[in-house]
Amino acid sequence: MNVKLIGYTSNPEKLPAMAATLTHSKIKPENLNKLSEKEQSAVLEQVIKLRHTSVIEHASFTFAISDVSRSLTHQLVRHRIASFSQQSQRYVNLNEPNYVVPPSISKNKKTKKAYDDTMETIWNHYNTLLEMKIPAEDARYVLPNATQTNIMVTMNARSLLNFFELRCCLHAQWEIRMLANKMLREAKKVAPRIFQHAGPSCQTKRICLEKKKDCPLYPK
Amino acid sequence: MNVKLIGYTSNPEKLPAMAATLTHSKIKPENLNKLSEKEQSAVLEQVIKLRHTSVIEHASFTFAISDVSRSLTHQLVRHRIASFSQQSQRYVNLNEPNYVVPPSISKNKKTKKAYDDTMETIWNHYNTLLEMKIPAEDARYVLPNATQTNIMVTMNARSLLNFFELRCCLHAQWEIRMLANKMLREAKKVAPRIFQHAGPSCQTKRICLEKKKDCPLYPK
Amino acid sequence: MNVKLIGYTSNPEKLPAMAATLTHSKIKPENLNKLSEKEQSAVLEQVIKLRHTSVIEHASFTFAISDVSRSLTHQLVRHRIASFSQQSQRYVNLNEPNYVVPPSISKNKKTKKAYDDTMETIWNHYNTLLEMKIPAEDARYVLPNATQTNIMVTMNARSLLNFFELRCCLHAQWEIRMLANKMLREAKKVAPRIFQHAGPSCQTKRICLEKKKDCPLYPK
Amino acid sequence: MNVKLIGYTSNPEKLPAMAATLTHSKIKPENLNKLSEKEQSAVLEQVIKLRHTSVIEHASFTFAISDVSRSLTHQLVRHRIASFSQQSQRYVNLNEPNYVVPPSISKNKKTKKAYDDTMETIWNHYNTLLEMKIPAEDARYVLPNATQTNIMVTMNARSLLNFFELRCCLHAQWEIRMLANKMLREAKKVAPRIFQHAGPSCQTKRICLEKKKDCPLYPK
Repeated sequence: MNVKLIGYTSNPEKLPAMAATLTHSKIKPENLNKLSEKEQSAVLEQVIKLRHTSVIEHASFTFAISDVSRSLTHQLVRHRIASFSQQSQRYVNLNEPNYVVPPSISKNKKTKKAYDDTMETIWNHYNTLLEMKIPAEDARYVLPNATQTNIMVTMNARSLLNFFELRCCLHAQWEIRMLANKMLREAKKVAPRIFQHAGPSCQTKRICLEKKKDCPLYPK
Repeated sequence: MNVKLIGYTSNPEKLPAMAATLTHSKIKPENLNKLSEKEQSAVLEQVIKLRHTSVIEHASFTFAISDVSRSLTHQLVRHRIASFSQQSQRYVNLNEPNYVVPPSISKNKKTKKAYDDTMETIWNHYNTLLEMKIPAEDARYVLPNATQTNIMVTMNARSLLNFFELRCCLHAQWEIRMLANKMLREAKKVAPRIFQHAGPSCQTKRICLEKKKDCPLYPK
Repeated sequence: MNVKLIGYTSNPEKLPAMAATLTHSKIKPENLNKLSEKEQSAVLEQVIKLRHTSVIEHASFTFAISDVSRSLTHQLVRHRIASFSQQSQRYVNLNEPNYVVPPSISKNKKTKKAYDDTMETIWNHYNTLLEMKIPAEDARYVLPNATQTNIMVTMNARSLLNFFELRCCLHAQWEIRMLANKMLREAKKVAPRIFQHAGPSCQTKRICLEKKKDCPLYPK
Repeated sequence: MNVKLIGYTSNPEKLPAMAATLTHSKIKPENLNKLSEKEQSAVLEQVIKLRHTSVIEHASFTFAISDVSRSLTHQLVRHRIASFSQQSQRYVNLNEPNYVVPPSISKNKKTKKAYDDTMETIWNHYNTLLEMKIPAEDARYVLPNATQTNIMVTMNARSLLNFFELRCCLHAQWEIRMLANKMLREAKKVAPRIFQHAGPSCQTKRICLEKKKDCPLYPK
């Protein structure tokens, strides 16, 4: 899995600070530019603390994601306040086996071998169907959830906070949790004040949305 | 594939007619109730003709959909102005082979046989992984796109019109086109005036969004 | 202010219960219909308790609202997961003074008199501009925030819960709080299990989003 | 009215070109970076021509807007695929008359004088209510639609194209049309290929959504 932040709003922390100031002052937005670094920080801290997160919607972040499974992307695209562009299985011929291996399988030689054999078999069947002149868009019906795919996703900072809350949780499915953690690491680099406390709800709000009392992170 | 309309806004055509009248009159909304059938029809016809479709958002439609592939649902959930509830592959054990067969495959005995054999092989591998104590949420990585799933979807009438425009198109992937056509048939039964002219853009707007001049439905 | 529930999804509580069951079972959605009242209640209670509220999006509610101010509607339409149809000030001639009076003004004869006089003056000016052949859409620039308007709004149950959380709060502006409380009362009549615990976050989550320690409802 | 583009996605045209390429190729998104200027242009042109505009959602644009009326912002915030931060009339004291004058009024001395007098009268009443200890959030009920306000808005490129289609139309209300035209001019400077053909539907699609045959721009 590769995750790279390939674009984002210029001034991702200044714009939200300007927006928050605008709502409570007479200063014209074109002059809000003059907010000092220190003033910006103070405003942002307040915004995050009070969860007045509508202002952080002004900053968006675009990630290039590769070598993830279709299982992952099927979950990912359920987030509706986001924009996606995904590699098409209708138009792209996928005749080489490229697939994701879950850690629970790779950690054991025997299960890893069984899994790899399964994948080889599946791709043989896929290629046989192509040889039988079945169109790629139908032959792909045999391809597994594990099939690797590429996707670009853009979310604004508020939608990202929600994404991290749900998907950095230990109870989330392992692959999307790994993705969420990598995205969070990338986002923090360019907007550290917005994302410094981002994470699962047990960290951000000290409540467990899943009510999993046996989780090691369950808030005390 | 089974598609059933299992719920919808009471008065799916009266509410939009009331809404359209409200925007241009002094009548209080609680009195708009008194619009005659004939007045409602006239207003609705105007709304559809002028594509002032924001008023039809007041009517929503809920469909129960079963025995469709995960390929289909991965496309379906890309529609963001909609609500979805889908059978989870993490929590539901799917040890019996249940899968969709594309028509291009089923129409020929030889390809159908090859496909069925593939499916049997895949499910054998899936069950072997389960026996090896791999959790269901990881074993499912071998399951194919063809795996059957169930989903409930709710869309408002405006979002449905857009869905039909894109997915009833001959260029759409066959399975989601079949779904779209079945949903349109169901929706027409309870809101005939809203959906009577619904369909692909070649029918509704006389333009081909795909610019496919070789399509039999290409507008003349 | 008049608020009336004029339409909603048939079976507003059954559909979410069916949706919640579908996600964790092999039962086909068309058979979920057979859930008993008791089973439905149990499922819904769990859903609300765990805040797995995506399933309640399948139920939508449409309200006719009249005699509210443009101040209120300007706030109301900021809710984006909703559909609105509002009386147009461009096309509807509003030559009679119809306006909302804030309680802080009406409770005192002197301020009430000053306010009424202001309104009469404003409408005289508005009518003078119309007589001078200024188009209604420009003359209305003098009309006050208090001007009465009518609006229809549709929200799904999840969006409504969020609306009630923000707008039933004692810190919310009085007019939209009054609206929210009336909408909640109406919604409870037809979906009592979904809305029984709805209200401001101090009631639903025992946290004060506004951090107002001096509020009489501040959670202890 | 002042309109200034104060932030936007870095590489607003490169990201959509990368996204469009990703969907139809095996190139990993982290390598799409290497697209030449010429390749990018060719891809973007195709995207705009075929209206495959989902990929341009990856680019967002943030505008600071000042000295517009509350009439305008009430219309503006109806666009739901957007993020807004607006100056609050609850918390900001607006005791100086600051208001917008429609051209149909300013072009004539007599109507201009009548309008200015009205505004002075209104603000006198507003200040009187404040002196009577009415809270600002209630006194503002007398303030006119013309009252100036400041707002920041962020939209992605696809949502902007839709905004321009509706609001650059000659049939749109004059103030929001002026805003739309200024926003379009700003957006074009940084994303000329995306916005070069943006504008009302008579220009972009050669159809008149309003069916106004008497409009000078009605497509022939």
